[in-house]
Amino acid sequence: MKVIIVGGVAGGASCAARLRRLDEKAEILMVERGPYVSYANCGLPYHVGGSIEKESSLLVATEQTFRVQFAIDCRTRCEVTGISSKQKTVELKNHGTGEVTAEKYDKLVLSPGAAPIRPPLPGIDLPGIFSVRTVPDARSIREWLVRGAADLSGMNSHTGFQAPTKPKRAVVVGGGFIGLEMVENLVHRGLEVTLIEKLGQVMPPLDPEMARLVERYIVKHGVRLELDDGLAGFQQSADGSLEVLTSSGNRHPADIVILAIGVRPETTLAKMAGIEIGQRGGIRVDEHMRTSDPDIFAVGDAVEVRDFVTGQWTLIPLAGPANRQGRIAADVIAGRDSRFRGTQGTSICKIFEGVIAQTGASEKVLVRLGDKDFEKIYLFPNSHAGYYPGAKMLAIKVLFRKSDGRLLGAQVLGEEGVDKRIDSFAMAIQMGCTVYDLEEAELGYAPPFGSAKDPVNFAGMIAANVLRGDMPLCHWNSVENGFLLDVRNPPELAKESVPGALNIPLPQLRARLGELPRDRDIFVFCRSAQRSYFATRILLQNGYKARNISGSMLSRSMLGVA
Amino acid sequence: MKVIIVGGVAGGASCAARLRRLDEKAEILMVERGPYVSYANCGLPYHVGGSIEKESSLLVATEQTFRVQFAIDCRTRCEVTGISSKQKTVELKNHGTGEVTAEKYDKLVLSPGAAPIRPPLPGIDLPGIFSVRTVPDARSIREWLVRGAADLSGMNSHTGFQAPTKPKRAVVVGGGFIGLEMVENLVHRGLEVTLIEKLGQVMPPLDPEMARLVERYIVKHGVRLELDDGLAGFQQSADGSLEVLTSSGNRHPADIVILAIGVRPETTLAKMAGIEIGQRGGIRVDEHMRTSDPDIFAVGDAVEVRDFVTGQWTLIPLAGPANRQGRIAADVIAGRDSRFRGTQGTSICKIFEGVIAQTGASEKVLVRLGDKDFEKIYLFPNSHAGYYPGAKMLAIKVLFRKSDGRLLGAQVLGEEGVDKRIDSFAMAIQMGCTVYDLEEAELGYAPPFGSAKDPVNFAGMIAANVLRGDMPLCHWNSVENGFLLDVRNPPELAKESVPGALNIPLPQLRARLGELPRDRDIFVFCRSAQRSYFATRILLQNGYKARNISGSMLSRSMLGVA
Repeated sequence: MKVIIVGGVAGGASCAARLRRLDEKAEILMVERGPYVSYANCGLPYHVGGSIEKESSLLVATEQTFRVQFAIDCRTRCEVTGISSKQKTVELKNHGTGEVTAEKYDKLVLSPGAAPIRPPLPGIDLPGIFSVRTVPDARSIREWLVRGAADLSGMNSHTGFQAPTKPKRAVVVGGGFIGLEMVENLVHRGLEVTLIEKLGQVMPPLDPEMARLVERYIVKHGVRLELDDGLAGFQQSADGSLEVLTSSGNRHPADIVILAIGVRPETTLAKMAGIEIGQRGGIRVDEHMRTSDPDIFAVGDAVEVRDFVTGQWTLIPLAGPANRQGRIAADVIAGRDSRFRGTQGTSICKIFEGVIAQTGASEKVLVRLGDKDFEKIYLFPNSHAGYYPGAKMLAIKVLFRKSDGRLLGAQVLGEEGVDKRIDSFAMAIQMGCTVYDLEEAELGYAPPFGSAKDPVNFAGMIAANVLRGDMPLCHWNSVENGFLLDVRNPPELAKESVPGALNIPLPQLRARLGELPRDRDIFVFCRSAQRSYFATRILLQNGYKARNISGSMLSRSMLGVA
Repeated sequence: MKVIIVGGVAGGASCAARLRRLDEKAEILMVERGPYVSYANCGLPYHVGGSIEKESSLLVATEQTFRVQFAIDCRTRCEVTGISSKQKTVELKNHGTGEVTAEKYDKLVLSPGAAPIRPPLPGIDLPGIFSVRTVPDARSIREWLVRGAADLSGMNSHTGFQAPTKPKRAVVVGGGFIGLEMVENLVHRGLEVTLIEKLGQVMPPLDPEMARLVERYIVKHGVRLELDDGLAGFQQSADGSLEVLTSSGNRHPADIVILAIGVRPETTLAKMAGIEIGQRGGIRVDEHMRTSDPDIFAVGDAVEVRDFVTGQWTLIPLAGPANRQGRIAADVIAGRDSRFRGTQGTSICKIFEGVIAQTGASEKVLVRLGDKDFEKIYLFPNSHAGYYPGAKMLAIKVLFRKSDGRLLGAQVLGEEGVDKRIDSFAMAIQMGCTVYDLEEAELGYAPPFGSAKDPVNFAGMIAANVLRGDMPLCHWNSVENGFLLDVRNPPELAKESVPGALNIPLPQLRARLGELPRDRDIFVFCRSAQRSYFATRILLQNGYKARNISGSMLSRSMLGVA
């Protein structure tokens, strides 16, 4: 059996290595268009920023590893230029020698990845505009950051000689993972950074109010953030520097531009092979990673996968799923019944001292799907016991099904313990956990690590309180016609108060019930919604129509209600 | 309805607060023998060590909070001195006034906790010997650490006057959680510390080979570790300092002694009430936290709970379960059907820069129960992507059922990302996860936080490889009669080699198969068992009887085989 694997990074490399382990006799040819296989593309922004100084650190396995250790015919700078699925052949072009050859396959695995989007805008090809996808991309950016425009031969020839100018101003276009990581790393290198994002928020998979918190970290580090403004084009100034033009008519001077406006599945080869492309523009595969041609498999960023929380087809250009898919394709080629279970969209991103993570469905996705059977809660617990040094507040949003309590999604932001909580939520969603299960989760507790009631337990308790009817909930966007009750203590109100709200500190509530209307909805809040929960319980049991405002003052500022 | 809650710390305080939320009209009396309610006893070692400087930081809620916020009759320094379960009364002694009163109850909740064991050994009552259970305990230790024996009026009267001597030498007796946390905190305060443990390992719930790794951290910080040596008694020297005598006949000089040899459920009240005590010496309760008397509930460290992994009754003196049990007792008293699901023994402990954590069943517990249907694996992955700065090696042991792949237990040690992995494993065990589920877990990955294949995924993959027959496994204790094959590269052997093992570096293996015996078991190893896995695959497919030695060289040093 001869298997050709196209693409030698995450999914392709995993597939090749796994296949060799399962089948010592298979003839395996892995071709990679670029100069490197199995490199850590997730590390590229950090290599640009310098925290990963050596380029070689990014090379997880080399061509040589594959040849010697796995007995795989591994060829870099080798591009597939044609596929005949009828004849089961591919045409290969060796970019080193220029030679074109044809190879027969029994099974073909496509792992071409996804390409950074480069819209055909005026000036898009000007020097100094970069994408961040490959090791050579990162190398070019690093060189540019050291030497600037002067390095381009001829570029400044009209001025005769120009001393190298080290770039000072960067514009990053696109506020997704790569954009944010590049923002952090360019700030880390001392550049003045502007981030331009077409949408009204950074990190599009997040719900916007959670993105607000991410934006605070960006702005806090001196980054100019331009939301709701699309890219219109580029111009070169007389001094060789760039200007980034936006749809609003703004012009942002830049010595370097990073394009991070998303990626598009590489489907050229798939189209060449005549296999099915899905609605989202990715290669359509079944749960065995098989395409519409039974002898062609596809894995990684180029394929569409099922989101198993929402049931929708989606594109998840992330390394974890790509690696798992590569393994599964290898299993199936080797005759096994392995299945990819789909994705739940778990992701995490460091942005300066902050960390933002997400798993499962977001509110906006549920709303888009017309799902009405969900509720959301906000909570702001400490990352670990408040009395142990270094505790930091987490901001957590949890989405769950109203009818049966099933956990649907979680978003967590903070500076410590974010990765831990998203992994607990992710494992919980994978296993079909309900909020009642979260209440009872027995997680590791000692003061440096958590609390006797971990934030994950708290999320479960709050959600279960809602579902059991113990704590009717509301949100700031639905309190307009109600009676607002603030149960904080007066010194807290001095800092920030809510117009029109009556203040009765919780300890006085039982004695002052007479001040409250019996015929109106009473929306109760405090700082974090814990005391207002206690107050809600008191009110409900005394016959008042009370609801707790989820997240209280802490969610209010996040939601931009103020 | 009148409910009396005995004990105002974790379980009792949770029960009281929850009950008030559920029933605004219940008459709730919470009595606490000590001076404080709802204090953070888990923080006491850190208060002694000084990282939690203020005692007040440990007081999570005060008597006043309970009175004012929860309308609970909360009485500290108030001890229950009698219970009549027939008359449904308790006798209370107010230690402030000396007054004794009787109170009727409809429901009684016992949350007396567990008391530090103080064996009746010679000299046990000498000054300078402390337990660590309460805020006053911590205060006494802190005072002693500042002023030493001279502070005790009369103690040194035979010498006339003696200047205060600040303690320099500490002996900690007992290497469990509290013992280890005290060791760290005393070292942190600059004391010379000796740790004496009766068993052959620290952290008794751990398997011994994992405890070895914990012991390395202790010894590395200059602590003298005396294992396999029991406490025999104490003597006072002429200068007022102590000597700790052990069963082996050793004498350890000490200016302060911390007794941390375990806790025993407080069952005095339970016996007074005539309710059932279990085989393990704790109060027996059903899943509703109800004792053998339908009107008496018990929660927290004093009760026996079911380990839901092993099905055995057990004592788990930890804050998380105590809090959950308190809530459940309140629910049931308020007429709800809440059930405690049992425990899985999740625990975590910081020991200097190391962290050790555990969840589910250990190997020794499974062996003790005669369970033969399990396998174990060791793995040593990086805490996050190796190419991103700061990655640290984790040591992970995973136990799983051979017949169906169900995850039974995990132990994780390392310096970074331990808490995260134990929480993922804990959530997985709670939800009945198999190792096949772990393979597919979609955890948060970005280079600062993990790897595209997280350690949790790796654990699943390795275990699944074993169960699918792809990687027959063995352990260092069962390789004696086999043929040992070392597939590391020669420079690695220079550091540490295994006598009698043949070295064939992995890249040469395919060409040198002829050197291997066809009729013998071949036990393959490398450094971390990854390359030896690849080698095992090559050998198996070529007809050899190969097994991979789990954990390879890294488990060998841990197991003390060398």
